[in-house]
Amino acid sequence: VLGRLYEDEVCSAARALEAVGERWSLIIIRNAMFAGTTRFTDFQRSLGVASNVLAKRLDSFVAAGLFELRPSLATGHAEYFLTPKGLDLKPVVIALTEWGDRWAAPDGPPVTYEHEDCHGRVELRMRCTRCDQDPPAAKVGARVAQWAIDRKNANRQRGG
Amino acid sequence: VLGRLYEDEVCSAARALEAVGERWSLIIIRNAMFAGTTRFTDFQRSLGVASNVLAKRLDSFVAAGLFELRPSLATGHAEYFLTPKGLDLKPVVIALTEWGDRWAAPDGPPVTYEHEDCHGRVELRMRCTRCDQDPPAAKVGARVAQWAIDRKNANRQRGG
Repeated sequence: VLGRLYEDEVCSAARALEAVGERWSLIIIRNAMFAGTTRFTDFQRSLGVASNVLAKRLDSFVAAGLFELRPSLATGHAEYFLTPKGLDLKPVVIALTEWGDRWAAPDGPPVTYEHEDCHGRVELRMRCTRCDQDPPAAKVGARVAQWAIDRKNANRQRGG
Repeated sequence: VLGRLYEDEVCSAARALEAVGERWSLIIIRNAMFAGTTRFTDFQRSLGVASNVLAKRLDSFVAAGLFELRPSLATGHAEYFLTPKGLDLKPVVIALTEWGDRWAAPDGPPVTYEHEDCHGRVELRMRCTRCDQDPPAAKVGARVAQWAIDRKNANRQRGG
């Protein structure tokens, strides 16, 4: 359904960005996720995004299975609800927030994330599943599977 | 230096997306981060991105302090090196990858992240700093600071 913007890329980050990498996408999802927004007019009003852009994004989210359009129990009108696939983007939004807090929030974090059971602050950690430590970013590397290297080469040959 | 695409938003995720939310941005950064790419021509060749887009992105990254342009020790030519601010986006790239692995990688993860000291697999966790547990996404909420609410209201009044 969605275009393959990064079609040569055999990469899950590229696939994720095809779903949520357009302008406004993650901001709309953030509002659904943390402010509980479900109505077109509420997204529009709270964000000030142009309604044609908002409609395009919400349509693509429904097509990609990130949201479903179903009647609200309260009003009976169709509203946009995040699916488990959409809700699972929470770490992406938190990762962006934490980076912005460190590098672009001179007045301190405008938003903090908290564990609803104990009201403790929630942070993302990189955790090594072998040694159980939290390695610093400089110690985290990528390993590309051989099948992915082969497929990327095949994609490039087909394209060129 | 960068435009305020999401200017009403008092939100660190919005600030992060202003720096890295354009098409190709995080893919370029991923290649610098995990493939060690530093040369314009290598970014261009490995990604197949249009060179005018690539030039625009790299210029904006330098302006935003994510990359610096300095002579390579090997060649003497100016090349693009991630700064600590740019490298600190690693959790963002990993969060996107993990989501793509779960929802858009029918053949399994093409790339895995590993701890360079022990070669263990690295994963992101949401960690509660109070109870020291990893809460499920559904139990993680957002708390907006009062000053941020006040400022957003002021931004809206000024704009409207």
